[in-house]
Amino acid sequence: MKFSLTNNFKEKLRNEIQNHNVNFIKKSFEGISYVDITELLIEFDSNDSKYVIDNIDIETSAMIISELDEDDRKNFLKIFSAEELAKFLELIDSDDGADILSELSEDFRNKVISEIDDEEKSKNLKELLQYDDDVAGGLMAIELVKCNINWKINQCIELIKKQAENVSNIYSVYVTDNKGKLLGKVSLKEIILAKDNSRIKDVYDDYIISVDAKMNQEEVSQIMQKYDLTVLPVVNKRGKLLGRITIDDVVDVITENAEEERQIMSGITSDVEEDDSIWKLSNARLPWLIIGILGGLFGAFFLGSFENNYFKDNQVFLSLSFFIPLIMATAGNVGIQSSSIVIQSLSNPSAFENTVYERLFKVLLVSILNGVVLSILVYLGLLISDYYSVLDFGLYSQTALIVSVSLFSIVMVSSLLGTITPIVLDKLNFNPALASGPFITTTNDLIALAIYFIVALLLGGF
Amino acid sequence: MKFSLTNNFKEKLRNEIQNHNVNFIKKSFEGISYVDITELLIEFDSNDSKYVIDNIDIETSAMIISELDEDDRKNFLKIFSAEELAKFLELIDSDDGADILSELSEDFRNKVISEIDDEEKSKNLKELLQYDDDVAGGLMAIELVKCNINWKINQCIELIKKQAENVSNIYSVYVTDNKGKLLGKVSLKEIILAKDNSRIKDVYDDYIISVDAKMNQEEVSQIMQKYDLTVLPVVNKRGKLLGRITIDDVVDVITENAEEERQIMSGITSDVEEDDSIWKLSNARLPWLIIGILGGLFGAFFLGSFENNYFKDNQVFLSLSFFIPLIMATAGNVGIQSSSIVIQSLSNPSAFENTVYERLFKVLLVSILNGVVLSILVYLGLLISDYYSVLDFGLYSQTALIVSVSLFSIVMVSSLLGTITPIVLDKLNFNPALASGPFITTTNDLIALAIYFIVALLLGGF
Repeated sequence: MKFSLTNNFKEKLRNEIQNHNVNFIKKSFEGISYVDITELLIEFDSNDSKYVIDNIDIETSAMIISELDEDDRKNFLKIFSAEELAKFLELIDSDDGADILSELSEDFRNKVISEIDDEEKSKNLKELLQYDDDVAGGLMAIELVKCNINWKINQCIELIKKQAENVSNIYSVYVTDNKGKLLGKVSLKEIILAKDNSRIKDVYDDYIISVDAKMNQEEVSQIMQKYDLTVLPVVNKRGKLLGRITIDDVVDVITENAEEERQIMSGITSDVEEDDSIWKLSNARLPWLIIGILGGLFGAFFLGSFENNYFKDNQVFLSLSFFIPLIMATAGNVGIQSSSIVIQSLSNPSAFENTVYERLFKVLLVSILNGVVLSILVYLGLLISDYYSVLDFGLYSQTALIVSVSLFSIVMVSSLLGTITPIVLDKLNFNPALASGPFITTTNDLIALAIYFIVALLLGGF
Repeated sequence: MKFSLTNNFKEKLRNEIQNHNVNFIKKSFEGISYVDITELLIEFDSNDSKYVIDNIDIETSAMIISELDEDDRKNFLKIFSAEELAKFLELIDSDDGADILSELSEDFRNKVISEIDDEEKSKNLKELLQYDDDVAGGLMAIELVKCNINWKINQCIELIKKQAENVSNIYSVYVTDNKGKLLGKVSLKEIILAKDNSRIKDVYDDYIISVDAKMNQEEVSQIMQKYDLTVLPVVNKRGKLLGRITIDDVVDVITENAEEERQIMSGITSDVEEDDSIWKLSNARLPWLIIGILGGLFGAFFLGSFENNYFKDNQVFLSLSFFIPLIMATAGNVGIQSSSIVIQSLSNPSAFENTVYERLFKVLLVSILNGVVLSILVYLGLLISDYYSVLDFGLYSQTALIVSVSLFSIVMVSSLLGTITPIVLDKLNFNPALASGPFITTTNDLIALAIYFIVALLLGGF
């Protein structure tokens, strides 16, 4: 039975693991990508997985460990000894290795590092561990091929031959001066095309985009996207070449950011997936639901005291209350639309951005346009339905006017709030997507309710 | 004054364009990435931009035209003759060329193609135009380096030398049989490392992932992400090598999908950006706002006739109406949370997905847990505030029970709807994110209102 990602094969493999059928395991996984094996192994408990990992070739095992996401890896890392992990780390790129090390307790991490025989590798890993997860230095791998600007092409080819084993994908060779400062690059294509005795100096490309090791990962990802780069060199503040970031890591950053934004927008606190436990799923949802409930209770309190103190005539309040859903829905929709447009431009910053005032002025115009259209629609709709007695539920005569005037005000206020909030959040280094999340939308709802009843008081003249 | 992406430089350039200062333009743009020049030029009107494009080197101009996004390009394409466009198309990759051609009217497109001198290029472009925009064939470029499995390495190097000019980035050389069927690849690294007279047969890697030209772009992007590929060969159904997709195109797909999802979730109809015209921005927002308004009017009608027909005692309806915001907010939050978790797993499909029934059963458990916690919280909160007369607005004695029982039912119903809707939308080939958009959330609000008042009737015993 050949390898396939099906429930059938999963059960078959489970049996063969129990039978300790090493032959079956070896044969099934021959020539299969570590990515597929990983997808299969996370379905098993850690002991069964370890049995598989121990019985396939060690390069594949190392790649499986590096392919796991943090959640799944937590269970895997517990069952390997420091010595076993050190063997894996010697075989994978230093950026992935540093990620794994950063997930270990400090004691165990030091133990693993001390077990690494390859001195170069352990030096690289220690260096990488100094960077935060979310900056260029935390994304880069140290392994790269570089050559001195004064070399000849054949010296460079010799070096590639020597270093090629350690560097998993070579796209280009970086060119540095004697002090290691990054000067440019030569693509492998150029190297193949150039004559053996031509000098790097004469064939290299001195136009090269690099980033500082401290740059945050969102900026790194914007640069790689903007300039369509597959690999991006990282330098220190003196311009010395430190490492390189490859596009696959940035694709992960982009995907994670999109998922994080989706979770924030829909009010889920932590990074959960559909296959997490019921308890974890509940736990991720409850906090935001409780915030919504508190907002709702506050709204009830507000409506109650308002009715009690200002509306002598219950019938008036009653006919106004029918439009609470309309008011709340519009406030919510307008607010989220506005934030979303701002969030979009914050995530694609342009060099020629409008100032905050220009933005607000534009939003003001858009919301006046929207507000006028919507209020007129609602006003006419209510007048007509009153005339034909469609809404024959004792519509208080001024309701139509009150609803449409407050609708206009709410469109204006929600647009402005929806525009300002993400800008302020971004300035304060919060994720601007929070502006579309339950906390801000609940606040927005309450403000809209307040506006509605204040307009009613002003226009109704009670 | 050197090139910089600032308003100052923009004004300076505008002046120099008016003065026809060709020297200034040539000097400013020397050694500058076409990406930056493009970002600057979209700030100008098309005539000024054309003046710049006509006066810099034609390779850069061609890259600028290919870098523009569809919106901006529309204006640019109008001002070039078929002959000029043909010159650009000869210089850029066929995938970008085909994108540009597909944006032209059929007549003009044929005219441009007939002006292309390079026969190979015009054949390639015609071939690519047959594919839809959103399948692998629409993403791929025809240009690639391939060699026969029976060749020797030095034959292959000769070929690379010959073809290198036409292929912008070479990552690996594809290996085919005599009929052009894809068999594997050799990386440039391998080619540099191999001895000149070794055979491709002996050094190539026969493990290669490829996709069918008809595969849709979401699947393509999932595969490239999953296997961390920078380039992916495209084959026809007989396995013949047709072209290759590079990661930068897939990064664009990922980013566009994330933006599309954000726009759908926040109820914006078309692809708009903050710097679009006020009219376009309004236009993108109004349709969803009107749907919200219609929902709200329907809600008002529902509340009115309900009150009219079933509630003899206005006071009871009044005290229930205070909790409309609570009910609506919770329904909305629960619904969006549930959809969001499903949308997430739909966008990262796993081979071992739960069935729809398993999913619903799990959601049921999560929502019972959430529902119980929230209802108890609200029930206790209302009892306590009644006791201490915090909510002294004539709270109808059974309100606390009615609110908490209906809250529980609403959490259940909204969870299930929020889970089923994206699955159904996905099955029907709609974007599942629509489940978090205004249409579904408005419907969800109305269902919640109905549940609330039906529970009130049942428990209140009016």
